[in-house]
Amino acid sequence: MLILNNKEEIKKNIDLLKKEKKSVGFVPTMGALHEGHISLLKRAKAENEIAVCSIYVNPLQFNNKEDFNKYPRLLNNDTKLLEDTGCDIVFVPDDSIIKNSSAFSYDLGYLDEIMEGFFRPNHFSGVVYIVKTLFEIVNPDRAYFGQKDYQQLAVIKKMTRDFNFNIEIVSCPTTREKDGLALSSRNARLLTPERLVASKIYKGLNFIKNNIHNKSINELKLWYVKYIENEPLMKVEYVEICDGESLKSISDISESNAIVVCTAIFIGNIRLIDNLKIF
Amino acid sequence: MLILNNKEEIKKNIDLLKKEKKSVGFVPTMGALHEGHISLLKRAKAENEIAVCSIYVNPLQFNNKEDFNKYPRLLNNDTKLLEDTGCDIVFVPDDSIIKNSSAFSYDLGYLDEIMEGFFRPNHFSGVVYIVKTLFEIVNPDRAYFGQKDYQQLAVIKKMTRDFNFNIEIVSCPTTREKDGLALSSRNARLLTPERLVASKIYKGLNFIKNNIHNKSINELKLWYVKYIENEPLMKVEYVEICDGESLKSISDISESNAIVVCTAIFIGNIRLIDNLKIF
Repeated sequence: MLILNNKEEIKKNIDLLKKEKKSVGFVPTMGALHEGHISLLKRAKAENEIAVCSIYVNPLQFNNKEDFNKYPRLLNNDTKLLEDTGCDIVFVPDDSIIKNSSAFSYDLGYLDEIMEGFFRPNHFSGVVYIVKTLFEIVNPDRAYFGQKDYQQLAVIKKMTRDFNFNIEIVSCPTTREKDGLALSSRNARLLTPERLVASKIYKGLNFIKNNIHNKSINELKLWYVKYIENEPLMKVEYVEICDGESLKSISDISESNAIVVCTAIFIGNIRLIDNLKIF
Repeated sequence: MLILNNKEEIKKNIDLLKKEKKSVGFVPTMGALHEGHISLLKRAKAENEIAVCSIYVNPLQFNNKEDFNKYPRLLNNDTKLLEDTGCDIVFVPDDSIIKNSSAFSYDLGYLDEIMEGFFRPNHFSGVVYIVKTLFEIVNPDRAYFGQKDYQQLAVIKKMTRDFNFNIEIVSCPTTREKDGLALSSRNARLLTPERLVASKIYKGLNFIKNNIHNKSINELKLWYVKYIENEPLMKVEYVEICDGESLKSISDISESNAIVVCTAIFIGNIRLIDNLKIF
């Protein structure tokens, strides 16, 4: 497994592989890898001849400095995991990769005004900048993202279209703990009592799914807030029931053929997101 | 010769050629082709297996609506010329190619504050958007631009670096009429008396080159304005003597190892630019 820091070296290596007609699957990450990342990498490896992973804790996408500082960094552990999974190339850029970011801007429109866009100002512009730049450098045939970041997936699909990238965006199912908690690098920061209640996030989403025909959208959202905040350690930042394509909020299930419920929850200082496709 | 309007078709065709390891040379144009464009295309054809040309009068890069409306459009003539020169693929996009342009912005910094950047607000952002988008679609190995648009070349080199394109930017000498006038599609709009005096632009640049060691930078610029405006049909918008790399104005030749003199001239309503490398 090749570990490279320099973008010119990455480009040179990928260029050679492309000339040999090797297909490239790419998994961009912020490290602190868990089974969710590994499942993306396995799929990249199964569907392509070469699997490339990047590890970069991108300061541009953190709207909260403490969250950035405390984000787990476990590079040695990560590279061992990647090697064991059969990753071919790991790209670990330094901060020079974002040096021109302030010169660039791109208006995501509505997608940046709701949910994660609304509550995390500049988050998606940071995501777009780093993913766009990594796409330019790695130039993969396919790139793999987890459905846990549902809105991020929509953002990346739009950016890929708008910038004419010849890259298939592959959306992969969320990996979960036995009790349903979606895997996240931030889970490592939960204290034991926080971890114990965290399963409510997914349990509540399932309640909404199972009762979508019995109750109104508004009743279900109110129910969710009450259900979560009944636990004093937890607070709901948002819960939205929206069209799965446009991500527009709906007020009645008849408005959409594909519905997803998305939420962001604070457990203490740790912010976690999750979502569930309803139909 | 293939003439295509649809970006997906262009991408598909180029993709197939790339898979056959064919190298692609690209000449983006606004049509109304002259010997200058043809010399770019000949070079693209000599240095690559496939030569691609685009023709699109890009509204984004015109700061003057009249100039845009009156810009010559000669598509049938152009495609015949391209076919005769051995062009393989012509891309003639419609305006859907710029439909997302307002979502995008990119700060060129100093390069957009001087000369063409200063006198043609939004010109270079329009150039960058269209060239970037054409690069994304055509994905060439090399792209060819004339030195007549000296500042544009610097802008495109910077953009190519900042967006990590794997494209060699090839800068080609300006093609001139016998009397020295730089070829430009706008020359066709000059009336006979205007055309007769137009050769002064290049003659004056040569005077500056030949006297760079005898006179101060400031004297030479003042001389040029006087020399040009001695002709009542002509007006100088700017004349700058600058470093050939950074395009920073210099006040003494000792400040730079490579100097270029750049000018923009109005003859009646027609605006022409030219430049000359001094050393």
